Amino acid sequence: MRKVIFDTDPGVDDAIALALLTARPELELIGVTTVLGNADIETVTRNALFLKDRFGFSAPVAQGSGVTLLGKHGAHARHVHGDNALGGIELPQTPAGPLDGRRGHRMMIDLIRANPGEVTIIAVGRLTNLARALDKDRDIARLVHSVVVMGGAFGTHGHTGNVSPVAEANIAGDPDAADAVFTAHWPVTIVGLDVTQEVVLDSAMLDRLDAAGGETGKLLHAITRDYLGFHQRSRKLDGIFAHDCLAVAYVVDPTLFTTREGPVRVICGGLASGQTIQKPDRPPFPTTAWDPHPAQTVCIDVDAAGMLALLEDSLSPPAPPPLR
Amino acid sequence: MRKVIFDTDPGVDDAIALALLTARPELELIGVTTVLGNADIETVTRNALFLKDRFGFSAPVAQGSGVTLLGKHGAHARHVHGDNALGGIELPQTPAGPLDGRRGHRMMIDLIRANPGEVTIIAVGRLTNLARALDKDRDIARLVHSVVVMGGAFGTHGHTGNVSPVAEANIAGDPDAADAVFTAHWPVTIVGLDVTQEVVLDSAMLDRLDAAGGETGKLLHAITRDYLGFHQRSRKLDGIFAHDCLAVAYVVDPTLFTTREGPVRVICGGLASGQTIQKPDRPPFPTTAWDPHPAQTVCIDVDAAGMLALLEDSLSPPAPPPLR
Repeated sequence: MRKVIFDTDPGVDDAIALALLTARPELELIGVTTVLGNADIETVTRNALFLKDRFGFSAPVAQGSGVTLLGKHGAHARHVHGDNALGGIELPQTPAGPLDGRRGHRMMIDLIRANPGEVTIIAVGRLTNLARALDKDRDIARLVHSVVVMGGAFGTHGHTGNVSPVAEANIAGDPDAADAVFTAHWPVTIVGLDVTQEVVLDSAMLDRLDAAGGETGKLLHAITRDYLGFHQRSRKLDGIFAHDCLAVAYVVDPTLFTTREGPVRVICGGLASGQTIQKPDRPPFPTTAWDPHPAQTVCIDVDAAGMLALLEDSLSPPAPPPLR
Repeated sequence: MRKVIFDTDPGVDDAIALALLTARPELELIGVTTVLGNADIETVTRNALFLKDRFGFSAPVAQGSGVTLLGKHGAHARHVHGDNALGGIELPQTPAGPLDGRRGHRMMIDLIRANPGEVTIIAVGRLTNLARALDKDRDIARLVHSVVVMGGAFGTHGHTGNVSPVAEANIAGDPDAADAVFTAHWPVTIVGLDVTQEVVLDSAMLDRLDAAGGETGKLLHAITRDYLGFHQRSRKLDGIFAHDCLAVAYVVDPTLFTTREGPVRVICGGLASGQTIQKPDRPPFPTTAWDPHPAQTVCIDVDAAGMLALLEDSLSPPAPPPLR
């Protein structure tokens, strides 16, 4: 069993990722922290509590940062995730359950300290909470088991950005936080557009989840309608990128991914703000801005069929044995 | 006949490019302007006069900018081009001929105004002279025929930088100048590492030029010894990139290249300084920093065999007919 803190801004693909996470027997969800991103912090926290109720997990939900490390609110992605960030489906007016009283980064620190060496943080939004936790308690870097981030784009397979020509949304949303997280002395694996845009969850599979995935499958089908429309219009895809799912899948089965190692820096400010740049292997030029920092792991290839099978098998329980 | 101004910082590959340029009957060299880069301005200007003498062209040589647009000297590339920027070969102490009295950017303006609509600028160093010329006389943008630049890297074929993980030397050496040149309203074609690092002039071809290329071939062989060593050590190549040659080749035969169109911006400052970024085709995100600027042409593929054949055929005169 791997203990997992899920740091998230739900968000359509966040919800699919959380469904996958809670469906996997080898993962134990011990806490959910929210962060601004796909919507404002109140909206994504409300959504996290709604998903806790619907998916039936017991881990506490704590509200994290509502502004970036430098205090900005930034833009949200209503055109992608819908006005309520869950595809515009009807949601209860009252919170579905109680919120943990701690700030997100504080609960993150407490959970890591209570489970030294055992916690994997799966972070699928802006990295503000992780940067704040590191800032408050540097020791957590050596106390976590690992950090897996959905974010960034390194240009392999031509995937260079989804909010600018060179930047991915989670990193562009708080580049200073991301640079702090990637240069900290803890083991980070980065699951960026290089792999998430290589996996298309097609509309037929979403329909199968609707039919065979129980209540969770029906919910995921409902919240992906507008998100599918966005991908159909902007990407000419009859399917969706399930970005955040791949970070969960990496923890379940890292053999689905091909990776490379090297220090990673993030461009903070200017036209390239949010760009993630890994130090090349044996470059013929100086890389002084990268050299002092630890090597991190960047995913550059994924077994897309294997990834989709993992997702569908996890969310569609096997049919019961035939009646005799 | 195409009238050409060659803006250059010779430089080993600059010398090969100038040899190609002066060997081509369809190109008329009408001026050479120098710019800091592969070495300081005095060294590269001395080298340009030396090459004028050795290649026997009549076009005037004018000394251009010795500092970047923002007044910096920057680093030179002695480890690539040698201490004298021509591979350390012995050079005459006294200048090989007279220098034009004008500043480089002034001669550039004069030549363009004297030949409206007819001049192609082939710029194979930092873009400081071009930016200064534009700044002094904006009208030249509509008076040139075209501008072809060796510089930049757009990440195709994995070619992202040769002086940083994301930046090419000519652009990184004066990013402000490059951004001014690429966003000006004149037609620019950018011949960057995406194509120049796809063409390897191997050591056997350099040996053939030595044997069959006359005095020019012998000179090019001599100046490429250390440059070949640099490529062998740093790139594990038994050959050299002949970067600047490809800009000349583009003017001779653009069909050797595959291109794409779109506004291009340059990152000025920070870890990504010198990165060139072209607006993607129909991106699903806003590109407000690119949109007001004219589309330029970026080379993304090259017929490497055709390029090498053009170079070798141009520099190795056909054997005389056999005696009867």
